[in-house]
Amino acid sequence: MAQAVRASPGGFSTSPHRSIGSSASWLNRPEESSAAWRTQGSRQAPPRSCRGRPPRARGAAELPGAGPRGRGRGRALASARPAPMGAPRRLLLVSNSTLRGGGYLGHCEQQVRRFLGQKVKRVLFIPYALHDRDAYAKTAREKFESLGGGNTFRLLKALYDNSLLQEIRKRVLEDGIPYVGSSAGTNVATVSISTTNDMPIVYPPSLLALGLVPFNINPHYLDPDVNSTHMGETRAERILQYHEEPNTPPVLGLREGAMLLVEGDKATLQGVTGARLFLRGEKPTEHEPGTDFSFLLTDSNSQKP
Amino acid sequence: MAQAVRASPGGFSTSPHRSIGSSASWLNRPEESSAAWRTQGSRQAPPRSCRGRPPRARGAAELPGAGPRGRGRGRALASARPAPMGAPRRLLLVSNSTLRGGGYLGHCEQQVRRFLGQKVKRVLFIPYALHDRDAYAKTAREKFESLGGGNTFRLLKALYDNSLLQEIRKRVLEDGIPYVGSSAGTNVATVSISTTNDMPIVYPPSLLALGLVPFNINPHYLDPDVNSTHMGETRAERILQYHEEPNTPPVLGLREGAMLLVEGDKATLQGVTGARLFLRGEKPTEHEPGTDFSFLLTDSNSQKP
Repeated sequence: MAQAVRASPGGFSTSPHRSIGSSASWLNRPEESSAAWRTQGSRQAPPRSCRGRPPRARGAAELPGAGPRGRGRGRALASARPAPMGAPRRLLLVSNSTLRGGGYLGHCEQQVRRFLGQKVKRVLFIPYALHDRDAYAKTAREKFESLGGGNTFRLLKALYDNSLLQEIRKRVLEDGIPYVGSSAGTNVATVSISTTNDMPIVYPPSLLALGLVPFNINPHYLDPDVNSTHMGETRAERILQYHEEPNTPPVLGLREGAMLLVEGDKATLQGVTGARLFLRGEKPTEHEPGTDFSFLLTDSNSQKP
Repeated sequence: MAQAVRASPGGFSTSPHRSIGSSASWLNRPEESSAAWRTQGSRQAPPRSCRGRPPRARGAAELPGAGPRGRGRGRALASARPAPMGAPRRLLLVSNSTLRGGGYLGHCEQQVRRFLGQKVKRVLFIPYALHDRDAYAKTAREKFESLGGGNTFRLLKALYDNSLLQEIRKRVLEDGIPYVGSSAGTNVATVSISTTNDMPIVYPPSLLALGLVPFNINPHYLDPDVNSTHMGETRAERILQYHEEPNTPPVLGLREGAMLLVEGDKATLQGVTGARLFLRGEKPTEHEPGTDFSFLLTDSNSQKP
């Protein structure tokens, strides 16, 4: 199953050859964790406690068209409300792993370092988005220089197949374990993967994802190229098609170089490239780095009718 | 449900204002058809004969990861073998509806005209790929000048919801009714929609599609832009990720301006822009217009292990 990766004492190494990350997703453990997350080595069966069907999360919302409803596998996990008594959620959702001209995770190294802080001893690395998980995890242990992206459908299906969604939700929303995702790892942190850019190379039991926030993200968001002769839909047109479906949540288009920091009920746009916000039935709006997106974390915005 | 559209006497009007087509898919009826296909007006319930679960097609192949297997909805319809006694299948699978600098369907008007011939009296138009079906069908009846594309997931889900897959397969593979698709309409004609470029805005019961041919197509195929700074996967990389999955069929990358003509067991690349062929485990190959792709229609090529 998921991989444990040793973090540098500072939480995130200054050397580009020893930085920690992946284009899938991480869960960082501030202190020693339970046995369920201590597993080393890939493809190992998940612990018994993770194997059952994930129970429906309290207050979980089900989205029309996103998958099977209310029965068995593929059940909705779309609630983003943390348990009232739990530690606040801490998420860093990055658009992309590599920015042209920079090293792997170079554009977000400072943010990841600040985010992890001094206490993180080990990182749980989830390598499901790439086909060769062992190689991916090995690279994650050593260095993160030249990894490509991952496939969101493959990552989400593996999370379902290993019954990990409910466990990750619990860890993040109730125990306050910090979560770092980039690209596919950012997609699966949101309500659903309905706004991924990836091809559906496998068929997950649902499109509903971790629901750590009550909206969707389109990573690698791309502005229309006015010089292009290509006639395929632009990214904005695709997101607008999504919003033609009823009860679809907001979509934050995170450009490469942008990331969203979520701490409890506060969300802030970081990075250098900005983001474009799509609310159902409204004109998209442009947002600069530093924008306070906390209003996206309230349920009233999550499913605009 | 699907729309009946009147064709011009010549099968395809010479006037760009009266040409017939869509970015979804068409079924052309050479002569008067059965009542099942005579329905006018949109959103009408499909006839009784189409409503049941589609029985598994003879020789149908199921692909790992493409969806539920062997039970109920979402059942495999991946066989491309026509019934031995049936008329030969006739398909025209177009990459895109509009080519930059030309009118709607301008780049393939000659091919569609030749394909339909003199006998076609009416066209069954399937408007499911766009949200506003009535408007889409109305435009289809009048002219086809400025239609945008459609969403493949939405089209396939509507075909499943209306139990139309088996009926369309029968009409095309057994009765020889000609089929024209472009973009989303081309995707759903193949084994599965696993190589669509669209976002999964809805969740169909399976990724398996009509299976009118035993391979997949990537429409709007796009070569890597060497000047781009965007770090998202290239189209070729996405198709290679698909081929990391076991038993995945060939993928034909049809550039905008390209189309595939299938007549019985013969397949020919038409248009002006060529295509790139991806076989699992092999280096992609480039193909000029006029290429004979009949070898892709044989089962031995359909699922290279």
